[in-house]
Amino acid sequence: MVIGAGFAGLAAVRRLAPAPLEVTLVDRHNFHTFQPLLYQVATAGLAPGDVAYPVRTIFRRRPHVRFVHALATGVDLAAQRVELEGAGPLPYDYLVVATGATAANFGVPGVAEGSFRLYTLEDARRLRNHVLSVLEKADAAGGRDGGAPVFVIVGGGPTGVETAGALVELLDTAVRHDRLQFDRLRARVILFDALDELLMGFPARARRYAQRVLEERGVEVRLGTRVAEVHPAGVRLSTGEEIAADTVVWVAGVSVEGTLAASLAGDPRGGGQKRAPGGRVEVRPDLSLEGHPEVFVAGDAAAVPAPGGRGWSPQVAQVAIQSGDHAARQILRHLRGEPAQAFTYKDKGMMATVGRRAAVAWLRGGLVLRGTPGWLAWLGLHLVYLIGFRNRAVVLVNWAWRYFRWPSGPRLIFGEPGPAPAPANEVERPRPGGGRRA
Amino acid sequence: MVIGAGFAGLAAVRRLAPAPLEVTLVDRHNFHTFQPLLYQVATAGLAPGDVAYPVRTIFRRRPHVRFVHALATGVDLAAQRVELEGAGPLPYDYLVVATGATAANFGVPGVAEGSFRLYTLEDARRLRNHVLSVLEKADAAGGRDGGAPVFVIVGGGPTGVETAGALVELLDTAVRHDRLQFDRLRARVILFDALDELLMGFPARARRYAQRVLEERGVEVRLGTRVAEVHPAGVRLSTGEEIAADTVVWVAGVSVEGTLAASLAGDPRGGGQKRAPGGRVEVRPDLSLEGHPEVFVAGDAAAVPAPGGRGWSPQVAQVAIQSGDHAARQILRHLRGEPAQAFTYKDKGMMATVGRRAAVAWLRGGLVLRGTPGWLAWLGLHLVYLIGFRNRAVVLVNWAWRYFRWPSGPRLIFGEPGPAPAPANEVERPRPGGGRRA
Repeated sequence: MVIGAGFAGLAAVRRLAPAPLEVTLVDRHNFHTFQPLLYQVATAGLAPGDVAYPVRTIFRRRPHVRFVHALATGVDLAAQRVELEGAGPLPYDYLVVATGATAANFGVPGVAEGSFRLYTLEDARRLRNHVLSVLEKADAAGGRDGGAPVFVIVGGGPTGVETAGALVELLDTAVRHDRLQFDRLRARVILFDALDELLMGFPARARRYAQRVLEERGVEVRLGTRVAEVHPAGVRLSTGEEIAADTVVWVAGVSVEGTLAASLAGDPRGGGQKRAPGGRVEVRPDLSLEGHPEVFVAGDAAAVPAPGGRGWSPQVAQVAIQSGDHAARQILRHLRGEPAQAFTYKDKGMMATVGRRAAVAWLRGGLVLRGTPGWLAWLGLHLVYLIGFRNRAVVLVNWAWRYFRWPSGPRLIFGEPGPAPAPANEVERPRPGGGRRA
Repeated sequence: MVIGAGFAGLAAVRRLAPAPLEVTLVDRHNFHTFQPLLYQVATAGLAPGDVAYPVRTIFRRRPHVRFVHALATGVDLAAQRVELEGAGPLPYDYLVVATGATAANFGVPGVAEGSFRLYTLEDARRLRNHVLSVLEKADAAGGRDGGAPVFVIVGGGPTGVETAGALVELLDTAVRHDRLQFDRLRARVILFDALDELLMGFPARARRYAQRVLEERGVEVRLGTRVAEVHPAGVRLSTGEEIAADTVVWVAGVSVEGTLAASLAGDPRGGGQKRAPGGRVEVRPDLSLEGHPEVFVAGDAAAVPAPGGRGWSPQVAQVAIQSGDHAARQILRHLRGEPAQAFTYKDKGMMATVGRRAAVAWLRGGLVLRGTPGWLAWLGLHLVYLIGFRNRAVVLVNWAWRYFRWPSGPRLIFGEPGPAPAPANEVERPRPGGGRRA
């Protein structure tokens, strides 16, 4: 059984699917989310459906793969059962836990209540609705008091860099093409990071390039700066400085605390697993749990050993895909009576786009692409990895259209407040509520 | 000023835009919804963004058109001002009220709380999430008690017929391609109408064809049958018969009661406008309000005289487009000092799709297309009328893909319960709430 239909979980199921096994995949959503493009959904470049793909469609041709649309609430390691919300427990022989992570608050007050994150499709939709509403409000007020939107982004990793780059482009589009009326010169996008450089982990050239392009395009990059508090009017820095902001996007890192994987560690029925920084579950070299060779942890939830054995691999898509695949291979080896193998992460490089025709791509072997070549590499790779011909075609149409004639994004403020739809696990029929059009 | 960015409002603004006037368009949503395809969103054939288009993008090249993203709450006819929620009133010289309608309950108990409608994009998204969740639940229960989903649709007009046809196809796809495990033979789609035939207003041939195709494809068509109550377990018919159902879709008609347009009639400052059946506002032959030659009502909100002067025209897209355009023409004529003209509805025909490669298209001149020709006409016409090249291209990709290889719809259960995004008119920043992944 595999819990989680993210990069790690899908990779595991893909590896297991051809074998003569009953494979069950459990996820609380009925779709896989292509997380690297969530920032595009959040900044109105792509529609939610462009970066998500139904799980059942992915494994349509695999009759042995069964999808269970449910929230897994716990694992009984001793009884070898996964507990589900609103349904009976499911037994397993082998288990891959690939439940991902959540946004890390690092103990900063106000983050949970006052900031947006960008880890799930729902996060992206909420942020987009908010950003577009902020622009509309600035337009409504603009003529009078010169109000202009201010966006604060906390975290200078790829997500922060990409979101900041896309937000300045959205501001330009809003003023130039949509003729929203606010003072563009007073509108701000501010990117904070506690470290002294952006894109930690990228080569120095790529990092300098990203910062230069962002600044040329109007992002205020403030490095070596710590955000001490998020409050309704903006953020307070550790220096005491107050920054007024409409929107705070918190993409400073992720944590495994509070997730199903984390509960494995505290489980008295389990072995009391060790935890690495960020709450990641420490695993044996083959990614199995100590004392439970039939249970593996993969992806963001796992403390995957880094190449060379010093520290842990980053929580990125490549590690998730490779570790999910590795866990599944170990299951197949175990079934064949072969010994377990240690996982080795093969770092193929990193990429981040800074905006239109500007990206950094760092490929293994030392090649660093910047500018248009970097952007084309980024675009091509993301198109290849998107699941499903339809999504690829639709995203290509969107991107081509946006490229040749800017202002075409799916810029809908959609998902109005009101009675929520039925959660999938609820048994009662929802009461959909009335048309409240006045 | 124009209130409402539906078919009527857009047609009015399009006509006014080239003139040397300041045109203000007010809508509570920042997008236009292509209502004829909402049933496709509700049945997972299209994504929400495929049938909606940002208003600002539509009028990008029209610098005199200003869009105000706000909910209009009232009209002060005497002072010539439109009142907005959360903002000051806007003065007007001329006004076109095109605020549409809402679902009509016809006084049937339980409809408002217990049924889904299909008039707004949000309605469609809610219904889709519900339908897909019902299928997932049937799958989860299927092996055990043989439970199978039952969908009840009330209303045999084009929306009801199209929704019923699409739902049986979705059921087939779910079982055949997605391998959901429930008893397809026990799954039901039941279409009720109080009249004795479907598609009231279509030629008899087209009506018989639609009913035959629906029944061949597995829809239970129950005509001359009135639904007396909607309750959590299903519906009760006027005969007393109980039908258990997971889902009740109420598309029996629309009403103008409770909308802004309806408030014009009751306004003591206005003239006390007359109301036609369904709460529609009675207008003079030129579509202006009695006593207010500067105020027009168009689209679903207006009781538009039928050709020949007997009764009123149906509340369909063609009438909306033509009446919105007519109202704008009268404003231009008034400005030039020309006398007002009476509105005449030019009925160009009607179309309804029954499913894949089956539609009825009734064109003026008496031509009735059925089957594949009807379906191609329906498809072509809808593509032409969809706003924006990008939407047309994306919808074409979706349809082509779905046609050649069924199971590719954007079948995401998306928009989870939880803290709602900020309503556009609220001034405070929303508190986006935490990642609740367990």
